Amino acid sequence: MPKTAGILLIGNEILSGKVADANAVYLCRELRRLGVDVRRLVVIPDEVEPIAHEVAVQSRAYDYVFTSGGVGPTHDDVTIDGVARAMGVPVVREPRLVDLLRGFYRESLNEARLKMADVPEGAELVTADALVFPAIVMRNVYILPGVPEIFRQKFEALRERFRGEPFHLRNVFVSMSEGTLADFLNDLLQKYPDLLLGSYPEFSNPAYKVKVTLESRDPEYVSRALEDFLARLPRASVVRVE
Amino acid sequence: MPKTAGILLIGNEILSGKVADANAVYLCRELRRLGVDVRRLVVIPDEVEPIAHEVAVQSRAYDYVFTSGGVGPTHDDVTIDGVARAMGVPVVREPRLVDLLRGFYRESLNEARLKMADVPEGAELVTADALVFPAIVMRNVYILPGVPEIFRQKFEALRERFRGEPFHLRNVFVSMSEGTLADFLNDLLQKYPDLLLGSYPEFSNPAYKVKVTLESRDPEYVSRALEDFLARLPRASVVRVE
Repeated sequence: MPKTAGILLIGNEILSGKVADANAVYLCRELRRLGVDVRRLVVIPDEVEPIAHEVAVQSRAYDYVFTSGGVGPTHDDVTIDGVARAMGVPVVREPRLVDLLRGFYRESLNEARLKMADVPEGAELVTADALVFPAIVMRNVYILPGVPEIFRQKFEALRERFRGEPFHLRNVFVSMSEGTLADFLNDLLQKYPDLLLGSYPEFSNPAYKVKVTLESRDPEYVSRALEDFLARLPRASVVRVE
Repeated sequence: MPKTAGILLIGNEILSGKVADANAVYLCRELRRLGVDVRRLVVIPDEVEPIAHEVAVQSRAYDYVFTSGGVGPTHDDVTIDGVARAMGVPVVREPRLVDLLRGFYRESLNEARLKMADVPEGAELVTADALVFPAIVMRNVYILPGVPEIFRQKFEALRERFRGEPFHLRNVFVSMSEGTLADFLNDLLQKYPDLLLGSYPEFSNPAYKVKVTLESRDPEYVSRALEDFLARLPRASVVRVE
């Protein structure tokens, strides 16, 4: 069975428009490459209750859940509390993380920084050569930091865990407008009902009017659908096939 | 009472990492300027059931809901169906939209394009001088198109509806690391419990280590909190105040 995922971005700074998130676009693209179907992406504030609610919902619904943000030393870092509440477990201080923090901060290790050694009880610590601090995984929930550089570093260290059957994608750029194209798309879907078929109008690039995406996990299925689609389309309307 | 909002982006292309959404960042920033508190942003696929579920949840929870995407003429444009199902009403063809489409497309108006005249029964059509087609509003749900240029055009035409009491924001850039700063932030929150206080570490710009944001709808409250915060911080650690 293909795997599914949910993504949870935690941060008032995104909702208030102060910061444009960089992690979701990266993660959606990487998961797609790995063959994981991202079903839902949610952004909520730095508050324990909404985090707990959304983690509980996503953790039940999907194979993997990824959280981004809210794991630093300050008052607004409450992701660990939220995940623990979602799972109905207490937050505990993890001695291996305390040791790592002590080695890193030495005499400037204080109570605020020690908060970064707190995990939901039962969490797994995933170590990798590239990581100074391990990634924290609570059941199917991967708790990642919001800082993009570290977010990517941690995801890269974990990525082979998520590899599955890939999607096969073909793009067709057409000079026909979407309203005329719609009948061709409907015909195609009747014959290939399992095709993932997308239609994206382009208004700023004069080279084409619509980008059509054909996708499936079965490469033969996509090839046959593409051939069929191209045979039906008026030849002059096909700008490019990728 | 300050107003709240939820945002719902509808699009497989975002979840599969093909396209980076441009509407959410714009909308979050504009709503913040207007004084609206965005509580939740969700991205889901082009499927009627998830759309209906999320619209129902957000429509009950927030003052305003904004949807982006899924309103064109093709098979994957199912937002209107989703909103109608969320509200428990049928989809009906709106004669005023049919007339507008006929004027626009003339002899190339076909059934696919006529789909763009469908609305949830009871929807309001909001016209404005700048708009060729009116914006569709169903109760507190503003149904906006995904194409960024048109999304913005429609929102601009509506924006004064949403104006409320604004947020007042001050930024303090400090050279102290977050782990040391945490105690100062906690002290500040004890004295100003209603302050919206954010702390954002910076790893790529050597000019400062953390950006601290102080916000409230009461400008006096922010001023007093800022003064207090600056008086407590070691002077040498304050890089800049905005």
